[in-house]
Amino acid sequence: MSQQKHRHLKADGRELFLYGAAPVGAALSGDTTSETGAASHLRWHPLRHEWVAYAAARQSRTFLPQSDACPLCASKGGRVGEIPFDDFEIAVFENRFPAFSSSMTAPAAIAGVDVAAAVGRCEVVVYAADHAASLSTLPNSRLRLLIDVWADRISELRQAGSVSVLAFENRGEEIGVTLHHPHGQIYAFSFIPAQLRRAAEAQASSPVISDLLAGLPRELLLCDEGTAVSFVPPFAMYPYEIWIAPRRRVASPDALNGAERDALAHALGDAVRRLDALFAAPMPYILTVQSAPEGFDDTFHMTIEIRPFRRAVGKLKYLAGVEQGAGIFLVDVLPEDAAEKLRAIL
Amino acid sequence: MSQQKHRHLKADGRELFLYGAAPVGAALSGDTTSETGAASHLRWHPLRHEWVAYAAARQSRTFLPQSDACPLCASKGGRVGEIPFDDFEIAVFENRFPAFSSSMTAPAAIAGVDVAAAVGRCEVVVYAADHAASLSTLPNSRLRLLIDVWADRISELRQAGSVSVLAFENRGEEIGVTLHHPHGQIYAFSFIPAQLRRAAEAQASSPVISDLLAGLPRELLLCDEGTAVSFVPPFAMYPYEIWIAPRRRVASPDALNGAERDALAHALGDAVRRLDALFAAPMPYILTVQSAPEGFDDTFHMTIEIRPFRRAVGKLKYLAGVEQGAGIFLVDVLPEDAAEKLRAIL
Repeated sequence: MSQQKHRHLKADGRELFLYGAAPVGAALSGDTTSETGAASHLRWHPLRHEWVAYAAARQSRTFLPQSDACPLCASKGGRVGEIPFDDFEIAVFENRFPAFSSSMTAPAAIAGVDVAAAVGRCEVVVYAADHAASLSTLPNSRLRLLIDVWADRISELRQAGSVSVLAFENRGEEIGVTLHHPHGQIYAFSFIPAQLRRAAEAQASSPVISDLLAGLPRELLLCDEGTAVSFVPPFAMYPYEIWIAPRRRVASPDALNGAERDALAHALGDAVRRLDALFAAPMPYILTVQSAPEGFDDTFHMTIEIRPFRRAVGKLKYLAGVEQGAGIFLVDVLPEDAAEKLRAIL
Repeated sequence: MSQQKHRHLKADGRELFLYGAAPVGAALSGDTTSETGAASHLRWHPLRHEWVAYAAARQSRTFLPQSDACPLCASKGGRVGEIPFDDFEIAVFENRFPAFSSSMTAPAAIAGVDVAAAVGRCEVVVYAADHAASLSTLPNSRLRLLIDVWADRISELRQAGSVSVLAFENRGEEIGVTLHHPHGQIYAFSFIPAQLRRAAEAQASSPVISDLLAGLPRELLLCDEGTAVSFVPPFAMYPYEIWIAPRRRVASPDALNGAERDALAHALGDAVRRLDALFAAPMPYILTVQSAPEGFDDTFHMTIEIRPFRRAVGKLKYLAGVEQGAGIFLVDVLPEDAAEKLRAIL
C-alpha cells in the first residue's frame, strides 16, 4: 500500500505511530508526560467467571477539556498535546491512563479472591487532526486507512504476545465520552475475555456468521458492497444496531484483501451516516471490532458491530435491572423495523 | 405476621395486591386500562447464547409524567392511576406494558433464528403512597414489609410455574427511570437467564457466598446486623457496589426467618442512606434481588445487590466498549477504598 507508518517515541517513552500517505514532518518539542499512577490489577468474579479490572488511576483522567486544550489535536502553535506534530492523518499512541500495560506487576494476595496483573496494552487511535470530524464525515479514503490501522495494530499486538485484542470506539457524551476529538481505542489482553470466548466457541462449533450472511433476508440488509455488507442482525440487542462484515470468513482485519477493506470502509461510513440521520443528531454509540482471539483463527468471522444508544428522539437506551441483573436485553424496536427505517433514511 | 395481603382485580383483568398492616378501604371507580400492544417474543443470540426480548409496545410507555399525573400515586381526589385506592402501604400490580406475560404466544418463524414466546410475568412493586419517598427515607418497618413482599411474590411466581424470578429496582433519571414514584419491578421467566445460570452453577460447585461471608475482611463490612450483613464485595464491578446477604445460606426471601428479614431490612435502608450521603445527592442505582432459579434451591445463597452509577460528584459510571464489547468491567475505585468511604459517611 502507499500508506506509511512512522514510529515516534514520546518524551515519556510511550510509542506513537503516525499512519497515512503524506510525509511526516519533524516532531515538535512539546509533549504530554505520563503520570505514574497506581498499578491496575485484575480480580476474579466468582459468580460471573470473568476478570474485573481495577484501574484506580483512571479517576483522574482528562474530563471534557476545553477544545483549545484538547490533547488529541496536533501540537502546533505552542500548545502541548499527545501528538507533537504539525499535522497527521491517523495517529495511534499508548494511553496515558492505561488500565492494562506490559509493566503491570502482580498485586498483593487478597484473601479468598483470585488476583492477577493487568498485563496488556491500551492504545488511543485518533482518526483525524480535525477536532470536529467523525466517522460519518471523514472521506472513504480515511475510513480505509482506519481499517488498515486496525489490521496493523491488531496483528502487531497479537504477534507481540497478546491473546486477544479489542478495537472499539465510544462515541457521545451520553455514554460517558470525555474527549470529543474523533478517536477510538484498542485494548490488548493477556487472556480471552469470557464474553469473547463464548462467541468464539459458538463460531468454532458452527459457522454462525457465514450462515447468517448466506441466509440474510433482503429487508435486513443496509448496504451491499459485494465483498462486505452492513445489516441489522435479526437478534439485535440494541435498537438500530448495525453489523458490518466481510462476506468471506476472515478472522481479523489483517487477513482482509484490499477490495474487502475498501468495501468495509464504505459500509462503515454509510452505517454511521444512517445512524446520524435517523434522529437528526449525532448518534451516541459503541463500535467494536470483533476479531479472533488466540486459537480461533480458523473458525472466527470478524465483524464490526455498532450499538447505538438513542432509541427515539430525546430517549436513550439504558441497560437497567433486567439487562444487568439477568443479562436479558429488552429491545423496543424490532430488527426488521429498524432496518426499514435505516434503509429509507439516506 | 400481622401483615395483610388484599387481592383486587383491576378493570382490565390485571391483578393488584395491597400489602400492609392497615385495613384496605373500598376500591375507587377510576382505573387505568391496559392497551393491547404488540406481542413480545424472544430470539436466541447465537454468539451470546442468551435470549433477547423484543417488546415493541414498550416504546410508548409512560415517560416522566408530571407528578400530578403519576400513575403510581393513590387514585384519590378524582385522579386516575394504577392503584384505585385512597391509600396503601405497598402495592403490587401487573405491568401495563409487560415484556413477558402468560398470554404471549409463539412468534412466526424467522429463518435462521430460534424464536420463542416471551412467557412470564412483569409486576410493578410500589413502595409507598408518598410520591417523594425512597428506600433511604422509608422506615425500617416498610423495608421489612418490602422483604415480605419480595418473599411472597417470588414464592408465588415460582409456585405458579416460573423457572426464575428477578426482583429489582432501577433508580434515577440518570439510568433511564421514567417514573419517579418509589417503585421496583419483578420479572418472572419461563427459563433461566444465562447470567443467572452461570452464577447458580458456580454456587452449586462451591459455596461462593458462604465462603465470602465467612472470610470477609472487617474493612469491607458496612453493617453487621448479626443474621445479615452489608458489605462491598472484593470483586465489585461498580464503584461503591454494596451487597446485602443473610449470613445463613437461604435460597430465596421466602425462606428467611423473621429475624433475618428485620436484619436485611435494616441493612438495606442503611446501605441506600450511605449511597445517598456519599455525594450528597440521591444515588442512581440498580438493585437486584438474586434468588435461586429452579433446580438450585439447595445450593444458592440469596443476595441483594446494589450497583450505583455515580462514581464521583458529577460523574456517572458508563458501560462502554470494554464492558460491552468484551464483558470486562473497568472499575476506578478499589473495593477497600469504597468501603472505607462508605463506612465513614454515616
